[in-house]
Amino acid sequence: MKRSTLHGDHGTLKLRRLGIDTYTDPVIYMRADCHVCRAEGFEARSRVKVTVGGRGIIATLNVVSDALLAIDEVALSEFAWRTVGASEGDEVRVSHPDPVESDSRLRAKVYGARLDAADMEAIIRDVIGGLYSDLHLAAFVTACAGDRLDESETVALTRAMIGAGERIRWDFPVVADKHSVGGLPGNRTTPLVVAIVADCGVRIPKTSSRAITSPAGTADTMEVLAPVDLDVAAMRRVVESEGGCIVWGGAVRLSPADDILIRVERPLDFDSEGQLVASVLSKKAAAGSTHVVIDMPVGPTAKVRSKAAAQSLSDRLRAVGAALGLRLRIEQTDGSQPVGRGIGPALEARDLLAVFQNQTDAPRDLRERAIRLAAAVLELANAVAAGQGAAMAASALDDGRAWRKFQAICKAQGGMREPPSSSITHVVEAASRGAVSGFDNRRLSRLAKLAGAPSAAAAGLELHVRSGDLVASGQPLFTVHAEAPGELAYALDYLAKHPGIVMLDPAE
Amino acid sequence: MKRSTLHGDHGTLKLRRLGIDTYTDPVIYMRADCHVCRAEGFEARSRVKVTVGGRGIIATLNVVSDALLAIDEVALSEFAWRTVGASEGDEVRVSHPDPVESDSRLRAKVYGARLDAADMEAIIRDVIGGLYSDLHLAAFVTACAGDRLDESETVALTRAMIGAGERIRWDFPVVADKHSVGGLPGNRTTPLVVAIVADCGVRIPKTSSRAITSPAGTADTMEVLAPVDLDVAAMRRVVESEGGCIVWGGAVRLSPADDILIRVERPLDFDSEGQLVASVLSKKAAAGSTHVVIDMPVGPTAKVRSKAAAQSLSDRLRAVGAALGLRLRIEQTDGSQPVGRGIGPALEARDLLAVFQNQTDAPRDLRERAIRLAAAVLELANAVAAGQGAAMAASALDDGRAWRKFQAICKAQGGMREPPSSSITHVVEAASRGAVSGFDNRRLSRLAKLAGAPSAAAAGLELHVRSGDLVASGQPLFTVHAEAPGELAYALDYLAKHPGIVMLDPAE
Repeated sequence: MKRSTLHGDHGTLKLRRLGIDTYTDPVIYMRADCHVCRAEGFEARSRVKVTVGGRGIIATLNVVSDALLAIDEVALSEFAWRTVGASEGDEVRVSHPDPVESDSRLRAKVYGARLDAADMEAIIRDVIGGLYSDLHLAAFVTACAGDRLDESETVALTRAMIGAGERIRWDFPVVADKHSVGGLPGNRTTPLVVAIVADCGVRIPKTSSRAITSPAGTADTMEVLAPVDLDVAAMRRVVESEGGCIVWGGAVRLSPADDILIRVERPLDFDSEGQLVASVLSKKAAAGSTHVVIDMPVGPTAKVRSKAAAQSLSDRLRAVGAALGLRLRIEQTDGSQPVGRGIGPALEARDLLAVFQNQTDAPRDLRERAIRLAAAVLELANAVAAGQGAAMAASALDDGRAWRKFQAICKAQGGMREPPSSSITHVVEAASRGAVSGFDNRRLSRLAKLAGAPSAAAAGLELHVRSGDLVASGQPLFTVHAEAPGELAYALDYLAKHPGIVMLDPAE
Repeated sequence: MKRSTLHGDHGTLKLRRLGIDTYTDPVIYMRADCHVCRAEGFEARSRVKVTVGGRGIIATLNVVSDALLAIDEVALSEFAWRTVGASEGDEVRVSHPDPVESDSRLRAKVYGARLDAADMEAIIRDVIGGLYSDLHLAAFVTACAGDRLDESETVALTRAMIGAGERIRWDFPVVADKHSVGGLPGNRTTPLVVAIVADCGVRIPKTSSRAITSPAGTADTMEVLAPVDLDVAAMRRVVESEGGCIVWGGAVRLSPADDILIRVERPLDFDSEGQLVASVLSKKAAAGSTHVVIDMPVGPTAKVRSKAAAQSLSDRLRAVGAALGLRLRIEQTDGSQPVGRGIGPALEARDLLAVFQNQTDAPRDLRERAIRLAAAVLELANAVAAGQGAAMAASALDDGRAWRKFQAICKAQGGMREPPSSSITHVVEAASRGAVSGFDNRRLSRLAKLAGAPSAAAAGLELHVRSGDLVASGQPLFTVHAEAPGELAYALDYLAKHPGIVMLDPAE
């Protein structure tokens, strides 16, 4: 067959800033009658390759009229603008993108085929390269959901995700880490665990996520107390001086594919066992961790809902961890009700401060969980004999050492700050007397998100009761906190449609 | 629990037309500092409910700066503008959308659960209502791909899709129809079959799709010969006067959910057995068809690749057809190479005209397929004894009756027109001598699409050889037709990277 290499140079267009913020969706705005659209046959929703000063991005084309751009002008969404480092007036080349080489592998997975290491590497390479549209990301996430990734596929995905980002090497023989599987509102033990463990002499350079489907991720909560957007060099300085840190994983570019997948998992509001394992363990391995404790809350409305599901996820974590050479310890914990009182970044931060400062009304359950998990880390890392970890952790909290360590870490990360307060609150009261019999964690999370968490840091819920409490009619159950009246109205509207988020058994 | 119904009225904004074409993605442009965004807590990528003069749509928010809008102004993408029937200066209300009630059903399917009739109805209702973002549509399509819809789910999906659109009732006892499963480039028999069958006295009101993943759908090809955007009343007039029609199904709002799902299937470039069956049979049932012949090309690079796959798909079609009360006949046909010479709307239309007009160089394979399928329709409809259909169909072509009938149908649909010609062509020649041993249909389709088909109607491929032909080195294999130099360049670039689209066995 004759090979042809005919290529036209269709010249360039001039960049103009329109200032349109599409979140993380790269969009290019062009006129249908500009010479590039006409020569290349581009139309609305074409995927195009945009090159500005040597930096490229794949963007979706939106076609605009002469009211917005001159015939030789082009504009970029703010995300695309930042990604290519554009300046007003830059010359822009727009061309057809190369076909996405991993397309056939994605299609095979959608149709039920197994993917091998080369398949996963190809897909993750294209994901990182920005070649997947959000639709294709959604298809990949969906095709891997439920039990549709087997163990070897999960190992392959995890390795591909590790390989696609930076990897931190530490000079310490033991690098501890801790992760919570999530799904339990308010379960914000990480800052306590890090401070306790670091104070006890075990290095724990913790990278955390922002919220995916919850009202707050650890990075969101930590951010109301100190900066978390540290690069690897800054993170290393904090760990070398303080023995531990709590930073946002996305800022250090560990497993950046994970952060891209989260962009679609978040609006879709689901993730999957295989991707959960790959997400967790790729971050741990890339962060250079050697000993990892995993907190797995189990409860009827938590992310892990049954003993069987916990077993399946634990097996998968252990198998993939072993394949990567990580030492894992999994702690199955009570996932039947939220931890602490606050749900949402600032409200959770206040709970943390209460425990650190040994306030008399500090939430006991949060303290006990932090002690249990810190003990597991200390024992796994051989910093203390088996069975002695809890006493060691408790004393670090009791005598204020953990609190001083946490302040030092915050200072090293850029300075400690005061959590914000919400200006708009609404108290939800019991409609009748009864005993609190349970909480719908999913709906509590939903409610906190509708109230604005995590992007509105002060928004969320503050619980006034726990399982087993007897309440009188009219007694406050929880307070909704919001930063905008519209968000409060939306949360209350949802609440009116979904009673029973706090379950009450009628008192006899 | 106390029920709260607090709601704020945050007033309205004034609509301004910016003229941004995002294809079918509804987008609203607002300033972050406008009173609605501030009161409601909206930010970039929020999903919001937009109401203009009583008509609503769910749109994605893009945040813009003061360079584009005044503080009390708002803009809509062109698709959203048309959908709500907007005018410059209209008052616009923007509010939080209700939670999508079918969310939990979609999530259950993603995680591998089975969906029942109520689930499918809820999902399709929300799809039709525009409540699903493109990401959620992609997740639904992916979760139903491969063998992930069982028979009863497929029946439920099909019924939900029928129920969500218009349904045509005919006064004829027999309403014939014909459908090709697709995947075979150039397999454009429908206009021939309709003209033959209608001329033989059987009513065949054909609604066709535009291309999903192919370089041309029947509606795309027919549109270069006559208008296809007829509403039900116009379609009824054509069928009452001529006995048959070939119109675009989307314009008559039969199974509109299908057209929405296609919006994401098309860029994703995959669809699934269950959705294929639901798509085909929902259109047929909604069109009021009673007797349906299905052309199923089977070949290694067609959509149906093996006898086993053909069996599975046939079984599924028959089972769902029976549940809906349709009489089906499935014709498995040769799917090893393209049909006719042209691939792309105008090039396929030229093949059709050659067969209708009994031109000496008319593609024999296209004629033979049309006769076979028309015969199947006539026999299924009892218009002729079993075994006699082919002779009846052939004579309708031979004596010009089918051609006159087709011209009458085109005239009734709004007037026959001349197919356009491409201005840019490139002949691809054999690199060596050999025997043509096969075609890669998927790559031929890809190539035709890269050349601009179907949106560039004259673009596509014109084949000069068929399987078994002996070719000399330098002999033309096919010609690429394009309407834009960039599209030709892109097609040729792809060709250079993917030799072997036409397979040659070296001659001994």
